[in-house]
Amino acid sequence: MTQKLPNIAVLGATGVVGREILNILQENKVEYDSIKFLASSRSAGSVIEFKGQNYAVIEAKDDVFDDIDICLASAGGETSKRFAPVAAKKGCVFIDNSSAFRMEKDVPLVIVGVNDEDLKNHKGIIANPNCSTSQLMLPLKALDDKYKVKRLIVSTYQAVSGAGLKAINELTDNIKTNLVGMPYEPSCFKYEIAFNVIPQIDSFVENGYTKEEMKVVNETRKILHLSENVKISATAVRVPVYIGHSEAVSVEFENKVDAESARELLKNTWGVELRDDISDYTYPTPKEAAGKNPVYVGRIRDSIAFDNGLEFFCVADNLRIGAALNTVRIAQKVIEMELY
Amino acid sequence: MTQKLPNIAVLGATGVVGREILNILQENKVEYDSIKFLASSRSAGSVIEFKGQNYAVIEAKDDVFDDIDICLASAGGETSKRFAPVAAKKGCVFIDNSSAFRMEKDVPLVIVGVNDEDLKNHKGIIANPNCSTSQLMLPLKALDDKYKVKRLIVSTYQAVSGAGLKAINELTDNIKTNLVGMPYEPSCFKYEIAFNVIPQIDSFVENGYTKEEMKVVNETRKILHLSENVKISATAVRVPVYIGHSEAVSVEFENKVDAESARELLKNTWGVELRDDISDYTYPTPKEAAGKNPVYVGRIRDSIAFDNGLEFFCVADNLRIGAALNTVRIAQKVIEMELY
Repeated sequence: MTQKLPNIAVLGATGVVGREILNILQENKVEYDSIKFLASSRSAGSVIEFKGQNYAVIEAKDDVFDDIDICLASAGGETSKRFAPVAAKKGCVFIDNSSAFRMEKDVPLVIVGVNDEDLKNHKGIIANPNCSTSQLMLPLKALDDKYKVKRLIVSTYQAVSGAGLKAINELTDNIKTNLVGMPYEPSCFKYEIAFNVIPQIDSFVENGYTKEEMKVVNETRKILHLSENVKISATAVRVPVYIGHSEAVSVEFENKVDAESARELLKNTWGVELRDDISDYTYPTPKEAAGKNPVYVGRIRDSIAFDNGLEFFCVADNLRIGAALNTVRIAQKVIEMELY
Repeated sequence: MTQKLPNIAVLGATGVVGREILNILQENKVEYDSIKFLASSRSAGSVIEFKGQNYAVIEAKDDVFDDIDICLASAGGETSKRFAPVAAKKGCVFIDNSSAFRMEKDVPLVIVGVNDEDLKNHKGIIANPNCSTSQLMLPLKALDDKYKVKRLIVSTYQAVSGAGLKAINELTDNIKTNLVGMPYEPSCFKYEIAFNVIPQIDSFVENGYTKEEMKVVNETRKILHLSENVKISATAVRVPVYIGHSEAVSVEFENKVDAESARELLKNTWGVELRDDISDYTYPTPKEAAGKNPVYVGRIRDSIAFDNGLEFFCVADNLRIGAALNTVRIAQKVIEMELY
């Protein structure tokens, strides 16, 4: 006997990622018994249209979770810290987009297609990885399985949508102000983002890296089950792009590798799409990736920095694979594996 | 007895870099006996204002070089290939911004303050390095002297001005078109540069790298006199910034290194200015660097990818240290060292 269809809730349904979750719930034809949309008291009462029906947004409170089986949450770390343990205690599977629980031992950190088996160990909370980590996992898992990652160096080119709706509007306002020759006082960002790049995302930690950079380091290790001997470093940079994170990736491997066989491998990797033919200038860009589901990989070449290494460029929609898409995919896996 | 002041010419005076050369000739108070402005037949006859005087732009032809001692050239590879050997034969020192002669054995490739001694070996042609190489040389020379570079991995964030005036205008047009919701057909760039990043600068070579990337590799080796054992790799990416190249740099060293002593070293390195205090969000951005002469360095931290390594972020005005400023500085050194 299969389990009954779940009662689903979307927490933070009015945010940038929340909206994308609604789109993908429809695209992926997720089946459920009932659906609710939750938000903070500020957004509660507003109306959301979903599959042609209007829904009132309900204020998130403890007792709302009484009859919810799966909650897809994207409402920030504080809200998740407040509600995830309560929801889990009430038997709800809380799929969290924030960084609040990602590194906790009892919380699976999952990219669907990479480490689905980890879902079985959940104790009520499942974490969705950080956007800059997420998009790298599908190609890197395939490469690690075959060649064994030894050292990884990532430089990111991250879109402003990763910082929310206000950041998107700030880029537009900043650009328009600059175009008429006026200075602009940034508020979301520490410096102007228009016609600029900013080498800081999230706050700094003790070793001089940012939290965003250490997320790439720590989450990659957790998702791919890499040992401490594997060395990882990242530099995270914000660029004036609306949607689509890009990453310049250098990897050293234990095993012999060459660009041609890596290309063949990634061509057949689920979730990855090659854009890699320099003979006709085919390589990925964020503008192409925006609104799409695959992780696009190109510029694959034998590394000249490492004897056994590859360099490549990896681009994806940060709101999709980096957030909403993987959240919905986790929900689908939880349903399919009857883990709720 | 000191040599008489030189007769100077600026070839390509009407281009983006040419204009900047004129600014810096004035700022740096370069002394000369006479000055001429040369361009292709297309721009010849136009008028340039310099130090309050009007000069007619003269068409570049062989005999123009008869009485020129030093030519500062920024007119593209084809023009340099056409005139550099002729000028050199006539006793003119031809300082070339193009990539045409950079890797030739008899042509010194010089960043002033790094390898000035190489100037002494010139045979009439001196090459100015590529912009993305140039800005890295001042900090990297100091680090190499003390710690010995073993491996270098660079990801660039390059401004459109590196591709000339048309590319600057294309960014503006592309942005304006996008802001009113219209598609845009790029011409300088292969893809739209507005709200996008493009992982290709210059054409591709056989190993899958671009010429721009291989310039970083080969020119760095030549300027710093590094052996073939030193491994270098680069990924060159165009970003929607008008002026100012940025670089995320990972370096492995032979000798023991730590961020604190590297910071102290770079604080006292000529041509370099630290922007490195994460406690108050001080790090370099291209918008700050535009129009300025120093190479700005920040985000210096102990690498967690290498046992003996550093990571840092390096930003400079690509039209200045990456082109015009170093060209003028070479001319000044040639005058000072009486090498003309």
